[in-house]
Amino acid sequence: MSNTAYTGAELLAVAHEMADAARAAILPFFRQTDLVADNKLDGGFDPVTAADRAGERAMRAVLAAKRPDDGILGEEYGTQDGTSGLVWVLDPIDGTRGFISGTPTWGVLIACSDDNGPVLGVIDQPYIGERFVGGFGTAEVQGPHGVIPFKTKQNSELSQAILFTTFPEVGTEIEAAAFRKVSEQVQLTRFGMDCYAYGLVATGQVDLVIEAGLNAYDIQGPIGVIEAAGGIVTDWQGKPAHMGGRVLAAANPDIHAKALAILKGIE
Amino acid sequence: MSNTAYTGAELLAVAHEMADAARAAILPFFRQTDLVADNKLDGGFDPVTAADRAGERAMRAVLAAKRPDDGILGEEYGTQDGTSGLVWVLDPIDGTRGFISGTPTWGVLIACSDDNGPVLGVIDQPYIGERFVGGFGTAEVQGPHGVIPFKTKQNSELSQAILFTTFPEVGTEIEAAAFRKVSEQVQLTRFGMDCYAYGLVATGQVDLVIEAGLNAYDIQGPIGVIEAAGGIVTDWQGKPAHMGGRVLAAANPDIHAKALAILKGIE
Repeated sequence: MSNTAYTGAELLAVAHEMADAARAAILPFFRQTDLVADNKLDGGFDPVTAADRAGERAMRAVLAAKRPDDGILGEEYGTQDGTSGLVWVLDPIDGTRGFISGTPTWGVLIACSDDNGPVLGVIDQPYIGERFVGGFGTAEVQGPHGVIPFKTKQNSELSQAILFTTFPEVGTEIEAAAFRKVSEQVQLTRFGMDCYAYGLVATGQVDLVIEAGLNAYDIQGPIGVIEAAGGIVTDWQGKPAHMGGRVLAAANPDIHAKALAILKGIE
Repeated sequence: MSNTAYTGAELLAVAHEMADAARAAILPFFRQTDLVADNKLDGGFDPVTAADRAGERAMRAVLAAKRPDDGILGEEYGTQDGTSGLVWVLDPIDGTRGFISGTPTWGVLIACSDDNGPVLGVIDQPYIGERFVGGFGTAEVQGPHGVIPFKTKQNSELSQAILFTTFPEVGTEIEAAAFRKVSEQVQLTRFGMDCYAYGLVATGQVDLVIEAGLNAYDIQGPIGVIEAAGGIVTDWQGKPAHMGGRVLAAANPDIHAKALAILKGIE
């Protein structure tokens, strides 16, 4: 399938280099009060900043130098076909609303995927200096307190579970109602963490993240991270989630099955 | 009024020493998966951890050594009368739900107050290593990217404002309805940041934080921080908020007046 040989260690090194480059490109814009937010979607509030674009350009420059035959799917600059069978899926700033609010919850998302989905994932939080990395036997967070291996929670009871989503409205009214049905069963529901919530599934803090309306580049990095930690990410029908849409990320198969049984009921 | 002379620099040094001690006491418990959460309130979910108690003991030990004549009001160990006219108001872990979820949004809150309210405030986020400090001419955040002076936003338009609260339900149904009236007027409403949201008002990222049901120890640290940055914190009637209850924190008097005009209408 590939004319470009690679090892997992090489891909991991490239991913770190990309994340380092994105950090350096984006951080100068963070918490600057003169930041201009464009309205990308008519009527919606989806700011795109110079930081977003600078971050993706920085990552693409690394790929051009190190992995020129791989494909790219990026939030800001679209698709670039490759010949290697691998595609890098990039979201330079996932959580732009968090970014413009100054919260340390947005992240740089990087995945390297083959035809079956992500084989490597990175969630990087540049302000904290924290990076969740999964793939090819690596499952760890590198942060202000060192490098710490991670694995997901083994709790299988919804009544003891912690559930996260970013916005209380979740998505459509139907999607919000489905979310609430799960929320009513769990011990604690929390909001506002953007992609950071997926990192917390990987580190064994959070049982479930349920979101809707995602794009491929919003979820492939988290899938790589969570699967490396022992978790499972699907859509609300139990099918692969790497193309985005409605997403259920769970710490383990048991808690996943219980949440899925509730979400599956919606049309 | 006082038989214990002090300078602002001395009190700031004591506050830093307390925050350092609380960090060291609390961090070993953070993101530990075997953490036991007690239910402090019947029927409510208000976990108190060993970390909470250890953090307050560490701060009280600093006060016993350095400021034995000052009073103390702490979340975990209650009131200790003093003779100096100063009271230290302590919340070792504000945002226990965030703490048990692994989010970097909880904080150690420290205020030093006289009869008129806080003269010094600290919001410390131990995991990030970030400390918002205000009082006696100091208004700065010390964090992973150095020491950065802060001041609040000067935006006076609700239509351009960013509003934070921790829980979508805010408090009672009446309080939630009042919150929504403000929320409908602003550009962006975000949830889930615990006390970190008040730090973001000080650093000029967030215009408004509206909460209800607070205790004195939940808000006095933030008051000290925000007032030092040029912001204003009152209750929903425009009166002093340092005893807790319903709180409106605003970046400047203009945006405060506009939000207050909406909140004041509730019974």
